[in-house]
Amino acid sequence: MLKQFRSKIEEKKKIEGALGILEWDLETCTPKKGQQHLSEIVGYLTMKEYEISTSKEFRDMIETLKENPEKLNEIEKKEIEVLSCEIEKIKNIPPEEYQKFSELAVTTQGLWEEAKVTNNYNLYKDKLQQIFDFNIKFAQYNRKDEKNLYDVILDDYERGMTTEKLDEFFKALKKEIVPLLHKIVAKGNPSRKLMTSTPVESQKKFNRVLGEYLGFDFDRGVVRESEHPFTLNIDKNDVRLTTKYMENNPFSGVFSTIHETGHGIYEQQIGDELKGTILACGGSMGIHESQSRFYENIIGRSRSFWKGIYSKVAEYIPVLANTSLDEFYKEINIVEPSLIRTEADELTYSLHIMVRYEIEKAIVERKITTENLPEIWREKMLEYVGVAPEKDSEGVMQDVHWAGGLVGYFPSYALGSAYAAQIFNTMKKEIDVDKILESGELYKIKEWLGKKIHRFGRFKETEEIIKEVTGEGLNPKYYIEYLKEKYSKIYDLDI
Amino acid sequence: MLKQFRSKIEEKKKIEGALGILEWDLETCTPKKGQQHLSEIVGYLTMKEYEISTSKEFRDMIETLKENPEKLNEIEKKEIEVLSCEIEKIKNIPPEEYQKFSELAVTTQGLWEEAKVTNNYNLYKDKLQQIFDFNIKFAQYNRKDEKNLYDVILDDYERGMTTEKLDEFFKALKKEIVPLLHKIVAKGNPSRKLMTSTPVESQKKFNRVLGEYLGFDFDRGVVRESEHPFTLNIDKNDVRLTTKYMENNPFSGVFSTIHETGHGIYEQQIGDELKGTILACGGSMGIHESQSRFYENIIGRSRSFWKGIYSKVAEYIPVLANTSLDEFYKEINIVEPSLIRTEADELTYSLHIMVRYEIEKAIVERKITTENLPEIWREKMLEYVGVAPEKDSEGVMQDVHWAGGLVGYFPSYALGSAYAAQIFNTMKKEIDVDKILESGELYKIKEWLGKKIHRFGRFKETEEIIKEVTGEGLNPKYYIEYLKEKYSKIYDLDI
Repeated sequence: MLKQFRSKIEEKKKIEGALGILEWDLETCTPKKGQQHLSEIVGYLTMKEYEISTSKEFRDMIETLKENPEKLNEIEKKEIEVLSCEIEKIKNIPPEEYQKFSELAVTTQGLWEEAKVTNNYNLYKDKLQQIFDFNIKFAQYNRKDEKNLYDVILDDYERGMTTEKLDEFFKALKKEIVPLLHKIVAKGNPSRKLMTSTPVESQKKFNRVLGEYLGFDFDRGVVRESEHPFTLNIDKNDVRLTTKYMENNPFSGVFSTIHETGHGIYEQQIGDELKGTILACGGSMGIHESQSRFYENIIGRSRSFWKGIYSKVAEYIPVLANTSLDEFYKEINIVEPSLIRTEADELTYSLHIMVRYEIEKAIVERKITTENLPEIWREKMLEYVGVAPEKDSEGVMQDVHWAGGLVGYFPSYALGSAYAAQIFNTMKKEIDVDKILESGELYKIKEWLGKKIHRFGRFKETEEIIKEVTGEGLNPKYYIEYLKEKYSKIYDLDI
Repeated sequence: MLKQFRSKIEEKKKIEGALGILEWDLETCTPKKGQQHLSEIVGYLTMKEYEISTSKEFRDMIETLKENPEKLNEIEKKEIEVLSCEIEKIKNIPPEEYQKFSELAVTTQGLWEEAKVTNNYNLYKDKLQQIFDFNIKFAQYNRKDEKNLYDVILDDYERGMTTEKLDEFFKALKKEIVPLLHKIVAKGNPSRKLMTSTPVESQKKFNRVLGEYLGFDFDRGVVRESEHPFTLNIDKNDVRLTTKYMENNPFSGVFSTIHETGHGIYEQQIGDELKGTILACGGSMGIHESQSRFYENIIGRSRSFWKGIYSKVAEYIPVLANTSLDEFYKEINIVEPSLIRTEADELTYSLHIMVRYEIEKAIVERKITTENLPEIWREKMLEYVGVAPEKDSEGVMQDVHWAGGLVGYFPSYALGSAYAAQIFNTMKKEIDVDKILESGELYKIKEWLGKKIHRFGRFKETEEIIKEVTGEGLNPKYYIEYLKEKYSKIYDLDI
């Protein structure tokens, strides 16, 4: 039975691998008019994979193995647990409803694109409400003993996460970060120097050097370009990142690269003992994002990191020749209220997420509908971030997530930052991070993360990892302390 | 039945499409250590496709449709004919023998790589003989009323081609081209100027301009880089080329690009009426190569073509600013006996093929074995091309084809050149090619080829197309006349 199970998993993983390559190709290579044809192939293989996953044969296999745990090792037990859980969720939702939801998400995403370009929210607000309605319905089907319906939704992206924990987390942020932001805004910012025309070829070369410096293994990975940077793992020996270069903003690409390299190093360090299992990939979205944000912000926007490499950078990005390390450090950490989440600085980023969290929770709780979202959005942005969009295309319509069916996904972004700071707090006690960064020995950080987090893949739950590494569950205080300490120094604040 | 047939074909084509993307990725993107994993996925999908193609269900379907031609339109009839033919070939060969042959080819290709690097032919000569033995055996299984066994092998790559026709073709080459080459060698060549350091970025930009100028549709195709340039069609709306840039030899990349663009334009112009059928791709290897060689040599190495674009090229390839069109034209048409086929000039190229043709035919006819190939190779090279390799790695071991199992493939390269010249002879009578080239109206050439050749895909056999377009079957005289006329002018010969 175990042999048949392994063979099915192998088949599933091969189809998933092919799908990964097709997805990669669609984002990085496929010509415009070839996308339709390739999407049809994706649809076909997705269906094949779905057929295996939901076949009676496969489900019976898992049921039998579940009933005979004595025959399984720890890794297999975890695989069966994860699969049972997925199958149960699928089982609870009538296939025809799921089909309708999938179609609705495609339609709504199309409408969203048009609505965003024409700045006309009304174009898709009803469909958007239907997206939320489906999410609510599915959560009702899957609800067991969760206190809140929104908990069921959160569980899809971050197992064990609850409204209660998130409320506490965002309450702390609101209390501490919003006032800090006000003080920073009152201080004002230096003028920007780094947004200078820099040949893309030269940026590319530097990003390659940077990837190697951080510890990304280019024998087991590649970096390409795409409109929206992302990371994809085909296998731990085939990890792919994209970045995006802007001629007039060389550090936009640099921080994209560092962020994705964080995801990539995670995937490259999955333990060999998980090879061939469904656990051989990064864990929850929150823990994955913690690794990318750790590299991007905690490492990549630190003074010590740049001190270690600064003398080499000007060769590729000439503006640095006329910029002191101190000026540079301040500029890459400028805090400035802004409208667009993906362009937000480290400090305001989680406030953007808070706006989304409060809105989606309220919709799921049936306290508001999509009817008045633009106004609600403006109010909340003004209150937390300090700016409000004139155009809804720069407000409620900026992200594709909801239109694409993803409800409950946003909190993970903020959780990632919080986990990163909490992990960092432990790391600092065990190794001398600043010294490591200044001497360019990045492999020591990579190894620490590899040993404590990366190698476990999906074998351990995020909550378990955070507890084992830091000695406690999610605690927002580390994130808040980290931000307060860093930014009060940069802005010379007395707090 | 027809509906089920179409649905099977659709499935087959989707798997083939996915395989195409995977192959593309392996050549252009996959990191070194990820190749093993991806090859396993390729193996899995190849097997899936093979299962469909050889299933009793599918074979019965084809048998039934074949017996009821009145229910089929012309396109469907051709599909059934092609598939029946393929199935029959598969049926005649015991699967376990084919399996052994496939494994042997993989092993031998590995040995060939090592043998080439260490310049040690003996390392794989026995395996190479086994490759030929399998080819001979399979040809015996498939032989119907063919006069020569080698005809059966040729038929796999060029339907209807025979030893008799090829003997006549190469005899004519030997009689006319070898003496022409001697005269040219006696005249000597100008010194080379074009091999000048040129930034790869700048080459890339020019190659893009060139692709567009030739008529390649970048909304329906892409160009990337790979070690060995090739063209792949996923669909007529997704045609992919690679090229290879050399810093110190900008025109190496240029002619690779023009060559592959010839293949690419062919695929992009397949008729819409063939969409979704197995005929929606280019025809035989010979006719495909005729299109790439037509663009590369007949167009791309003509004076009129460069006259039409010359003033724009120096922006990207600065050496042209100091090179007259006349000097340039002479240099890109330098004839020089050399050892390596893939680097040979237009005139000597087919002589390289002749060496391979005579050798593989003699092995199939059991007149020689692989035992003494290095000596035989040297003798023939000296006789036809005028140079002989000191090292076998630059001689009999230079090409992977035989080691990889491909016997009977080489003649198609020479046939491509001959078809191209024969087609050109007709084209010149119908449209004013020089005027079109000088005025940069390349689309007129593309349209002519599209209408006469490209749109038919695999619906028509190569022999049929050549006869319809030129009024006769393969006739080497056009190719010989073309070469004699062109090179006697360039080298100022009185012939």
